[in-house]
Parts: sequence; C-alpha cells; structure tokens
Amino acid sequence: MNIAIDAMGGDNAPQEIVKGALLAVEQYPELAITLVGDEEKIKQHLPADHKFSIIHTDEVIETSEEPVRAVRRKKNSSMVLAANEVKSGKADAYISAGNTGALMASGLFYVGRIKGIERPALAPTLPTLDGKGFLFLDVGANMDAKPEHLLQYALMGSIYCQQVRGIEKPRVGLLNVGTESEKGNTLTKAAFPLLEDADINFVGNVESRDLLMGAADVVVCDGFAGNLVLKSIEGTAISMFSMIKEQLTSSFTSKLAAGVLKPKLRGIKDKLDYTEYGGAGLFGLAAPVIKAHGSSNANAVLNAIRQTVNMVEKNVVPTIQSHIKSDDQKEE
Amino acid sequence: MNIAIDAMGGDNAPQEIVKGALLAVEQYPELAITLVGDEEKIKQHLPADHKFSIIHTDEVIETSEEPVRAVRRKKNSSMVLAANEVKSGKADAYISAGNTGALMASGLFYVGRIKGIERPALAPTLPTLDGKGFLFLDVGANMDAKPEHLLQYALMGSIYCQQVRGIEKPRVGLLNVGTESEKGNTLTKAAFPLLEDADINFVGNVESRDLLMGAADVVVCDGFAGNLVLKSIEGTAISMFSMIKEQLTSSFTSKLAAGVLKPKLRGIKDKLDYTEYGGAGLFGLAAPVIKAHGSSNANAVLNAIRQTVNMVEKNVVPTIQSHIKSDDQKEE
Repeated sequence: MNIAIDAMGGDNAPQEIVKGALLAVEQYPELAITLVGDEEKIKQHLPADHKFSIIHTDEVIETSEEPVRAVRRKKNSSMVLAANEVKSGKADAYISAGNTGALMASGLFYVGRIKGIERPALAPTLPTLDGKGFLFLDVGANMDAKPEHLLQYALMGSIYCQQVRGIEKPRVGLLNVGTESEKGNTLTKAAFPLLEDADINFVGNVESRDLLMGAADVVVCDGFAGNLVLKSIEGTAISMFSMIKEQLTSSFTSKLAAGVLKPKLRGIKDKLDYTEYGGAGLFGLAAPVIKAHGSSNANAVLNAIRQTVNMVEKNVVPTIQSHIKSDDQKEE
Repeated sequence: MNIAIDAMGGDNAPQEIVKGALLAVEQYPELAITLVGDEEKIKQHLPADHKFSIIHTDEVIETSEEPVRAVRRKKNSSMVLAANEVKSGKADAYISAGNTGALMASGLFYVGRIKGIERPALAPTLPTLDGKGFLFLDVGANMDAKPEHLLQYALMGSIYCQQVRGIEKPRVGLLNVGTESEKGNTLTKAAFPLLEDADINFVGNVESRDLLMGAADVVVCDGFAGNLVLKSIEGTAISMFSMIKEQLTSSFTSKLAAGVLKPKLRGIKDKLDYTEYGGAGLFGLAAPVIKAHGSSNANAVLNAIRQTVNMVEKNVVPTIQSHIKSDDQKEE
C-alpha cells in the first residue's frame, strides 16, 4: 500500500506532518509513504536512513486561496501532486491538512467520483460523551443537497462505520429539528422515506442537541446545515473553555482549586478532541482522500494515516461502489 | 397596557407563571394583567387582594400536541383564550410558556400578520461572552425561507434591537458557512445582496462558531438552520456541564476543589442562561406575542413580561409596519 501525503498542508507543516508519517511507518512497516513538498524542509525532520519517497515542489496552495482556481492554476502544488500520485495509480490514497475546498476540488479533478455517486461528502467523526464518536456528513462539500444525496451519504457512512469502525449495524440518523417523522424542511421530509426504504439501520430523525450524547453512529444532512452545526459545537466548546478559564483565574482560592482541577479539565478537552478519530473523509471519491485537521500535530497525522490505511485495507471504496451499483440495478 | 398571560403553559405552571406576574405588577404598577387558566389553581398562588383579571378555563394545549390541530380544536384552551384577548382588542400582547408551534398557530389565526410580512419568525435573544446577547431569527417558525424572508427578519430584528434593546445601529449578520460574501447555499447567496441594499447596518456573513463571541447583534437565517444551531449550542453546553460534573466528582481531592469552584461554574451557567434576556418574540405578528421558555421560573416569566411591556411601549409592531410599508412603496 502506498499513501501520498501533502507535507506542506496545515498550520504545523512540514514538521508535524513528517513526524506523523514517521510514527505511522513504525506501526505499519509495510506501508509505503510518498511525501510531497519542499524536500529540503522535509528532510530536516527525517533521519538519514528514512524510507520515504519524496516528490519535491516549491508550490503550495494556501488556506486563503479560492479552492477551484488554486487547484487549476497550481498544478505543481504539493496537494495537486499528491492527488496526481493517486490518479497515476502510484498511490492508493492521499492525505492533506491544507485548504479543505482545494482538497475537494483536487479530489474531483484528479481522482474523480465513484460511478453513481452524485456528490461527494465531507465526513469527520465527532466526539460523543461515551467516547465512541459519530460520523457526521456532509459538513460542507455540497451546500444544496437533494434527498437522493442524503440517501447516498447514509449508505456511504453506514459502510464506512461497518468496515472501518467495526460497528455491525450502524444507527443512521437524519439531522432534523424534531424527532417526529413529519418534522423538518422540504429536503428532510423528502429524504426521510428514502432513508426508511434503504438497506441501512435507519433510526429516524435526530436533533442537534442530542448529537454529543450519541444519538446515532452516522448522522446525515446537507453540507450547509452540517457545517453550521459542526462550527456551533466547536464555537460553544471554545467559548465555554474560555469562560471556565476566566472564572478559574478570577480569585486566589479558585486559582488554587483550579490547579487541582486543571488535569481534569484537560481530560474534557481531550474527550472533545476529534483529531483522535482521524481526519475527515471525502466520501464518494474513487479513492480514499482524507482531510487532516488544519492544526494537526504528529499524533493527529498518525490517526489520519491509520484511518486511511484502514479505508484501503477494508475496501471501503469498492464496497461503496458495489452497493451503489446494486442500488442502480434495483431501479432499472 | 393590558397583557394576557397563558397561566397554564410550561413545566412550572401555574405557580411560577403567577409568581412572575406578581413580580411584574410590583415593577409596573400601571400594568394590567389577565391570567388565563384554571382559576382555582391560579388563586392558590395569589394574595386575596390581587388586582389581576382571571379568565377561567379547564382546557390546556399540551406540549406534545400537534400545534395546528390543537389550536383549531381547543378553542377554550388557556393559550387560545389569551390570543383571543388580543384579537378582541382587550389585551395589547400575550405570553405563553407552552407549546411553541401552537403559540405560532394561535398568533397567526387570532392576531394575524403585519401587512406585508410574509412569514413570522421566532426570535430568542441568545447569550454572548460579553453579556450583551444577540437576537437570533428565525429559529423555527418557517422551515423553508426565501431570500425576501431573511430580509424581513433582518429589518424586524434591527428595529427590535433599536427600540427595545437600545442599540443605536444594530450589527446585522447573515448566518453562513464562511465570512466571504460568495459563500453559502442558494438561499444565503441570494439573500446577501438584498441585505447589502437594505437600510440596516449589515456586517456580512457570520459563522456559527463566532455567535457566542458576539459576532453580530442580530443574526438571520432560515428556521431550519436556526433551530439546528440553537439546539447545537444548547446540547454542547449541556454535554460540557455534564462532563465537568463527572470529572469534578471523580476523586476526593477534586471534590474538595470542586466545592470551591461550584459557585464559579454556576456563574458560567448563569451567563449562558438565556431566559435572562426574556422570551422569544414571534416577530411579524400584528401584536407582540412572546414565547417564554418551557422551563421558566418566576424570574424568567418576569423577564418575558418586561420584554413584552417594552415591545408595546416602544411601538415595535407599528415601527415594523411603517418600515415594511415604506419598503413596499419603494418597490412600486
């Protein structure tokens, strides 16, 4: 297995990307990794006897760049060259912690969609209180989804959770404003019966307030709603930590108490740390394409690589392909 | 001024509703309040010399009931009778802590919309870290909004913040997946130029992760998105409090430290308590209709009454009416 990694993407590139790759080959000695980026800078973090392939390039797509234009123009960027490794068949999958939109565009242009999948979906695994996490898609690949897209997200998410996360019958929920079947907007009302009829373990509507409590293993929605909810959860958690910090440092006594409690609060932060679950998959592409979090450290990169290895090993893409095919045949 | 109150709505009715009304007449001696509900039960919480009008009824709309059907069938319910007080001109506004959908339906059927307003919006004020709060609409009155609806929400929200909250030039933001003007789905892309051209202080797109940081004074979105985001914020806050509690009670030392910190954490809970800002207004109706939180205690009811008094006193509905009219004339 060969995985191409954009060594220049994310806030801590290339150092943490390279360190993560080193951790990965310790765990997977058979794994071949191709690092794409500034060779000089990459090598600063590698031992002399490393076994990585390195593809050198100076060009990088910045986070602030308009994604589609950047991918079209910067054909020698580390991200596009990594995508090209998959296109040419030299790599089985690729990973980047860089510009999410550009990763999506590079995936569409260079890897292409699975036949029958209309829209790819961005699918991170978010934390839950019980530590099991849930797969959330789409969180922003496709802003205006149709009911059929939500059905495809549900199928892909269900297969991923079965194959990679080892959940036998993943509970699939439809993100909605109420749990009753008649609730929602035009989209969710039309998607509900499609999900009911699908060959998945559909548990009905789930409300956004129950997501962290583990209301379902897979939660589907359009990319606009998913992105809003993802960022609401993030923003609320960040705001609460900032309030807690402010309160804890507001007097001497509570400073003392806070010293004792600091490790406990760190525990909560760790529990909410979704880089633990790997990166966000771009489901629906003809090969695994993984977005590692922009602020990824070596451990987060390792988790993203582990996830990618699992997706390749467990044949997630071919399984999706066969399910979409059999679904097409059903319709004929 | 006369305000009708559904004394039977909410988890703590009628006790906390009646207590809240008593607190209100202490603050506003000129205020006339009509309590609607089970006279016997209401009177248990009233002194003998009270000055409330009471309209007796046994019928109550339950939270679990299908809203439109309940309002149509239960014409003698406490909520519908309160709405009828406004319809007959005997009351200037009404308040309920009961079934939100039924309140909306009763408002539409009995009070009616402001001429020119296509869809009413449910508009709570949510907390921000700086304690100022922001008005968030729509959070669920209208699931599939059109761009023109978002424009009307922005106008109504802006007027409310000016008149009732005393913000001179309320910053109005469009809830979106990114701050750049070209971001979003079909709806937000179409709404953006309308908001830009409107006679409001439009500050552009705001992301859901920045809401609690006070990104804007008024944030507009369709009711589906708003409901999801509202409940994501609630759910995340609840989940984090539950994790903190679990962590704090997990050992003896931290139990001790937690004792010191408990009041501090309560401070955070209070900061996030949006009943402090009053109830959620149903904007766009021809009279102020206010939804108090289902779990309202006396203080939350007092705040909802205060908000209602302000809306009536500051002529929020007539001001909206005149702005919508002048907007209509512009188009002609």
